[in-house]
Amino acid sequence: MTPQTSPHAPVREVVRPTTFVEATRLGRRLGVELTIASETFQHTGSFKFRAAYHLAAQVPQQRIITASSGNFGQGLAFACQLLNKSCMVVMPNTSAKTKLEAVREFGGDVELIDVTRITRSERVRELAALHGDAYIASPYDDPLVIEGNATLGEELAASGESFDFIIAPVGGGGLTSGIIRGLRASGCPVRVYGAEPELANDAARSLRSGCLLANETEPPTIADGVRTLSLGQHNWAILRDGLEGIVEVSEEQIKESVRLLFTLANLKAEPTGALGVAALLAAPKLFCGQAVCCIASGGNVDPELFRSILAG
Amino acid sequence: MTPQTSPHAPVREVVRPTTFVEATRLGRRLGVELTIASETFQHTGSFKFRAAYHLAAQVPQQRIITASSGNFGQGLAFACQLLNKSCMVVMPNTSAKTKLEAVREFGGDVELIDVTRITRSERVRELAALHGDAYIASPYDDPLVIEGNATLGEELAASGESFDFIIAPVGGGGLTSGIIRGLRASGCPVRVYGAEPELANDAARSLRSGCLLANETEPPTIADGVRTLSLGQHNWAILRDGLEGIVEVSEEQIKESVRLLFTLANLKAEPTGALGVAALLAAPKLFCGQAVCCIASGGNVDPELFRSILAG
Repeated sequence: MTPQTSPHAPVREVVRPTTFVEATRLGRRLGVELTIASETFQHTGSFKFRAAYHLAAQVPQQRIITASSGNFGQGLAFACQLLNKSCMVVMPNTSAKTKLEAVREFGGDVELIDVTRITRSERVRELAALHGDAYIASPYDDPLVIEGNATLGEELAASGESFDFIIAPVGGGGLTSGIIRGLRASGCPVRVYGAEPELANDAARSLRSGCLLANETEPPTIADGVRTLSLGQHNWAILRDGLEGIVEVSEEQIKESVRLLFTLANLKAEPTGALGVAALLAAPKLFCGQAVCCIASGGNVDPELFRSILAG
Repeated sequence: MTPQTSPHAPVREVVRPTTFVEATRLGRRLGVELTIASETFQHTGSFKFRAAYHLAAQVPQQRIITASSGNFGQGLAFACQLLNKSCMVVMPNTSAKTKLEAVREFGGDVELIDVTRITRSERVRELAALHGDAYIASPYDDPLVIEGNATLGEELAASGESFDFIIAPVGGGGLTSGIIRGLRASGCPVRVYGAEPELANDAARSLRSGCLLANETEPPTIADGVRTLSLGQHNWAILRDGLEGIVEVSEEQIKESVRLLFTLANLKAEPTGALGVAALLAAPKLFCGQAVCCIASGGNVDPELFRSILAG
């Protein structure tokens, strides 16, 4: 047997390094020594490209199918463009126009669905039956996704900064599980907290109960990147012991954090990307005086929504 | 005589390196290979800290007086805080509240004036008479300012990128003259263009005529960082031969560039910081297909103004 090797450039050579922003004024305001690791300037504007590229480069299939209303779809479309593969992205017909445009701009085939008539996963199954040669990619629940996101954990470990805490958004758990995997593989013991909307607190409830729990319906949080029903199985296996804890934040704290990042750190973050800072607002005593690194996971937000958040 | 040496950390060790953002989507839209060198994450949110720190570290005086309604005041206040010096910043009583707050937050003494009763320079002269021991700092027309800003030129030369053009905003000329000085000292021949509002085109007119010309009154451009009457003498001496040219841009092109940076590059730039991209809109044939680096000089903009720009 020949070993399965990929002819493609490895993910570490393709991703852009995360952007470390020393947020002096914002940190003073919040009573911590604050660094933002911003993935807003990653290819396609969010950390999702790390996982999408790694997955697309590693699987032998030429065609990849996924369901995503947002950042994973963009990341996968651009990754496939770079790798000369093709991808189909199932998106609700209610998706933001800018996100549809971005997927198409990067050469992805958009499969619009009416979610009142068919669920995303049903449509993915239909497409999978039509295209038996395709790889069906979950945006979070896949070891390749976790490996791709682990590159961010490796960068955090290699940064030379000695953070007391890292705080990252939790939705399906792809980001936090990847960060923990990368940190630990690099021998870095820094504690990792998740930040999750109160409205979508399945991960916090899972951690408390010790069992993987799910939301009954898609949670209506403004943080559209974490509107998942539950953690993935692969993610939960890492997070149940790997996370120090999860801080639950209110919708108002998310919006306030978008404003604070904008006014005091000059950062444009999408609501999901502001969850780490929202955790500092929600649990100030937990982090007081500590060196904290918040992961700004992405910056792709509709200008109209951003305007309404800035208006307060 | 003992040589005059400074006990302070040199500017190169204190400034944050500029943030290079590969703006793939924005570049495709504008027909160039586009990199943004963003100074929006520099200390105090603009390149002005480079000059302010270098000046404050080099002059022997303990007290520094300047007039600034914006970014130089913030930069100088933070520099003096780091250097255990004091500074007075003459600001119009019409200055944006957030800019007043920032100067005070960094320990600067704000001297508010009613510009209908006294000009900034008159008040600076009064304060200079009261404080004979103080150094009077121009935000642009001072060799120390140019030397401080030259650190950005050195970084651009050392980046390993081979740009065809660099485009930077022109107001008093402190930034462009510093960049040119730093590039040439590093042996880098890359061509530098200035970007200037049509409403404030004294530098473009000066370059055309070969004589240093001035605006009669403070130009009402939305780009508040370049509302200067003319280039400084020290700056003009470098720019008259050092600049490849100046592209004049409309107010609408400035606003469109703020929106494009926001939506396609996830960057929050102040109007002055978007001038380089506005030059690409104003003179597309000049830069078509070239590798261009636009300097986003700063990100400090009032949220209300930003909202109104986003609304289009």
